Amino acid sequence: MRLNCDLGESFGPWKMGLDEAVMPLIDMANIACGFHASDPLTMQRTLSMAAEHGVEIGAHPAYPDLVGFGRRSMQCTKEELQSMIWYQAGALDGIARTVGLQVSYIKPHGALNNDMMRSEEQLRTVMEAVAAYGDDVRLMVPVSRQWETHQAMAREIGIELILEAFADRAYDDEGLLVARSIAGSVHHDEATIVQQARSFAERAGLTSVSGQWLDLPAQSLCVHGDNPESVQAVQAIRNALDAGR
Amino acid sequence: MRLNCDLGESFGPWKMGLDEAVMPLIDMANIACGFHASDPLTMQRTLSMAAEHGVEIGAHPAYPDLVGFGRRSMQCTKEELQSMIWYQAGALDGIARTVGLQVSYIKPHGALNNDMMRSEEQLRTVMEAVAAYGDDVRLMVPVSRQWETHQAMAREIGIELILEAFADRAYDDEGLLVARSIAGSVHHDEATIVQQARSFAERAGLTSVSGQWLDLPAQSLCVHGDNPESVQAVQAIRNALDAGR
Amino acid sequence: MRLNCDLGESFGPWKMGLDEAVMPLIDMANIACGFHASDPLTMQRTLSMAAEHGVEIGAHPAYPDLVGFGRRSMQCTKEELQSMIWYQAGALDGIARTVGLQVSYIKPHGALNNDMMRSEEQLRTVMEAVAAYGDDVRLMVPVSRQWETHQAMAREIGIELILEAFADRAYDDEGLLVARSIAGSVHHDEATIVQQARSFAERAGLTSVSGQWLDLPAQSLCVHGDNPESVQAVQAIRNALDAGR
Amino acid sequence: MRLNCDLGESFGPWKMGLDEAVMPLIDMANIACGFHASDPLTMQRTLSMAAEHGVEIGAHPAYPDLVGFGRRSMQCTKEELQSMIWYQAGALDGIARTVGLQVSYIKPHGALNNDMMRSEEQLRTVMEAVAAYGDDVRLMVPVSRQWETHQAMAREIGIELILEAFADRAYDDEGLLVARSIAGSVHHDEATIVQQARSFAERAGLTSVSGQWLDLPAQSLCVHGDNPESVQAVQAIRNALDAGR
Repeated sequence: MRLNCDLGESFGPWKMGLDEAVMPLIDMANIACGFHASDPLTMQRTLSMAAEHGVEIGAHPAYPDLVGFGRRSMQCTKEELQSMIWYQAGALDGIARTVGLQVSYIKPHGALNNDMMRSEEQLRTVMEAVAAYGDDVRLMVPVSRQWETHQAMAREIGIELILEAFADRAYDDEGLLVARSIAGSVHHDEATIVQQARSFAERAGLTSVSGQWLDLPAQSLCVHGDNPESVQAVQAIRNALDAGR
Repeated sequence: MRLNCDLGESFGPWKMGLDEAVMPLIDMANIACGFHASDPLTMQRTLSMAAEHGVEIGAHPAYPDLVGFGRRSMQCTKEELQSMIWYQAGALDGIARTVGLQVSYIKPHGALNNDMMRSEEQLRTVMEAVAAYGDDVRLMVPVSRQWETHQAMAREIGIELILEAFADRAYDDEGLLVARSIAGSVHHDEATIVQQARSFAERAGLTSVSGQWLDLPAQSLCVHGDNPESVQAVQAIRNALDAGR
Repeated sequence: MRLNCDLGESFGPWKMGLDEAVMPLIDMANIACGFHASDPLTMQRTLSMAAEHGVEIGAHPAYPDLVGFGRRSMQCTKEELQSMIWYQAGALDGIARTVGLQVSYIKPHGALNNDMMRSEEQLRTVMEAVAAYGDDVRLMVPVSRQWETHQAMAREIGIELILEAFADRAYDDEGLLVARSIAGSVHHDEATIVQQARSFAERAGLTSVSGQWLDLPAQSLCVHGDNPESVQAVQAIRNALDAGR
Repeated sequence: MRLNCDLGESFGPWKMGLDEAVMPLIDMANIACGFHASDPLTMQRTLSMAAEHGVEIGAHPAYPDLVGFGRRSMQCTKEELQSMIWYQAGALDGIARTVGLQVSYIKPHGALNNDMMRSEEQLRTVMEAVAAYGDDVRLMVPVSRQWETHQAMAREIGIELILEAFADRAYDDEGLLVARSIAGSVHHDEATIVQQARSFAERAGLTSVSGQWLDLPAQSLCVHGDNPESVQAVQAIRNALDAGR
């Protein structure tokens, strides 16, 4: 079970995230590519830090919307979507090669991720974009009860998926995240978070909010480096998983 | 003697240049990367056209200034400059790989090109950026009487240069372009343009405005696809060079 | 019956529209404000031209999407929408005052216009934004069979509407434009266009594609200055309306 | 002696500055207009806060460079500069009117401010832009030993200046700020800062780093709200000036 985190989300003079604190604790860094956050110099610094800590890097492409942080859905054509994914992954790769790294996976950000999970057509568009980008590059998608369907589609298109899950979010019976607007959807208690991380790692699933067991074979847990509390939770997950090996 | 042209300079709904007409006539396409012109979809279309016509592709990076078309000098740090060159070249490479192409050279655009030719420090910064991007990638720079100095610097840094010249511009005794504001600086007569192209191709130099012979061993001629007249001039140059082989 | 036209849609070095040709023929110019097209200098030039020809000016605000020309719907909050309308109208007013003009109406552009006509909630949001901007400023909306509902809502909110129609587009029985994808939706024949313009001007309505008469009391006709043919059609409409007075 | 502060410099999801803490302590807010920082919604919130505390508002226009925070000099033409100042001031005014406020002065930001103080031609360009924007609007410029020359130029062009000074920066014998790179150029000691504020307020000048007395009739002091220490210094200046009345 590997830990991934959205990183490199500063922009010009504006800082976001405790990247220095969380980078040493994770395995995979999903790095912003300038469309929802970041800029060339921020990307260079983030990549240098990833290289220093031996962290695998993934591109974190988004809709072109800095003001909205890529969280506002935009109606784009298939061709627009695919070319913007290649542009962003390539831009990251272009800086990555100067520090000896290479993009090995792509994880869509924000509204682009949500839209892809709501529309099979858009998921296929993204998968085809990843396939065209290069055969070593995988696509990271949220695990849900649809994971076998998603994997079948990925096999057909010729790419590999990385199924990701969240240790700090409650899941409904479909294996989908309970909406943030609902009470209890986000775990703040460290013990609960660690327990859910261990459940994914050791038992390949978790118990839903209604008490039903869900088989969800996540390969990576998404963790957060927004603030000192979340970094502390990452450290606790890291310790629990390392102890469990 | 190979022909290069700045291409792919449309942006979203706005068209610029007769790319379809000029692409079949050239050997090397300097493709805009989204900072002074272009966007992911325009880049994808330009690259597809280059692939179709077997044209070598180069990245044409610029200062981040769409409104000013990269023609306004911006005071950037070394780190900013290098990371923005890598970002743009990488973005182009990211789309290029989906049509089987690869960036093989970099030619700075507009004010970035001018600033680099005016400041040895900035030229070194650009050369180091190209070197770090990868050992197969060359830097295209205007040929001038300083060309041996530039090649020595390039050798020291470990990159190869492509020296370019203009068939439609008058040169002064330093081997620099006569400023556009001066009468006679731009050739409009096709015969004159073709003659200057042949002079560069066959005699590795040309006669300056003052009548002095200049040894300028250009390896590529920069041509233009802005309007029907310039495309016709490219065709004439192409014919003359092919006939001279 | 007054003629309005979307103008000032160039951006930096990229030209769009035959503004010089169409400005003398119209009464109201809907001027882009930098979010889907235009930039400060283009706005200044467009406004100078409007001042010269005594043309009334309206702000033509859009979603922040230059690459997509404001044609891609974006999910924005009410607060985001209202502040971006004020920002754009204000920016236009800021330049307009230097040539003695003032924004007297607002016409949302592209996807923002479509979204507003599809959602009563968003239409209300836009109306409230116009009301807050100032009591002399009107909102231009497409006329449809819902026009009385729209006017009631406008009265309640305290603004005045300008109902606009198209001389070159077919209407369905709801008084909505027939989608461009359907054959016959766009009139290209000048006589048909002029006839439809006269129908709106003299009979306050038109016959729908199914042959049903529609009462549509348009106050302004939207004309186009994209190419020589459309400018010629504007001249023909202008002549017909002037003759009909 | 009035206190002014650069505010509203957040951008989309990125926060900058302790605006809530400093707004109640100042008299004049220099508000970013979207070119170096801010966005329509951030401007709306900043203006609401200014309205609540009865703070006078000024536009803080900049070069179009979010990534560089308007700190990178850009070579713009006179027409570009003037239209971008009108655009930004107008955009702020467009939102300000919805909360009952009006831009009463303009203070150029960052590199635009520096360039204007280094070039008489650019200062004249800015002054003419302010004059054209409207006769009630003043221009805020740093006070220096050139202040009488600046005021003469302003009178000739028909605008009023607001001369501003810094309480926390050392001045050289020309009445210019000592460069930040030089030790002792920035005062961190609260007592020193308060003393310099009182010197400007009560004696219309200060002692330079070389010990020479400078007559510098500043009308406003620029204070900072970047961090808790700077806000505390603003409180101390406020207290000292209020006590001195």
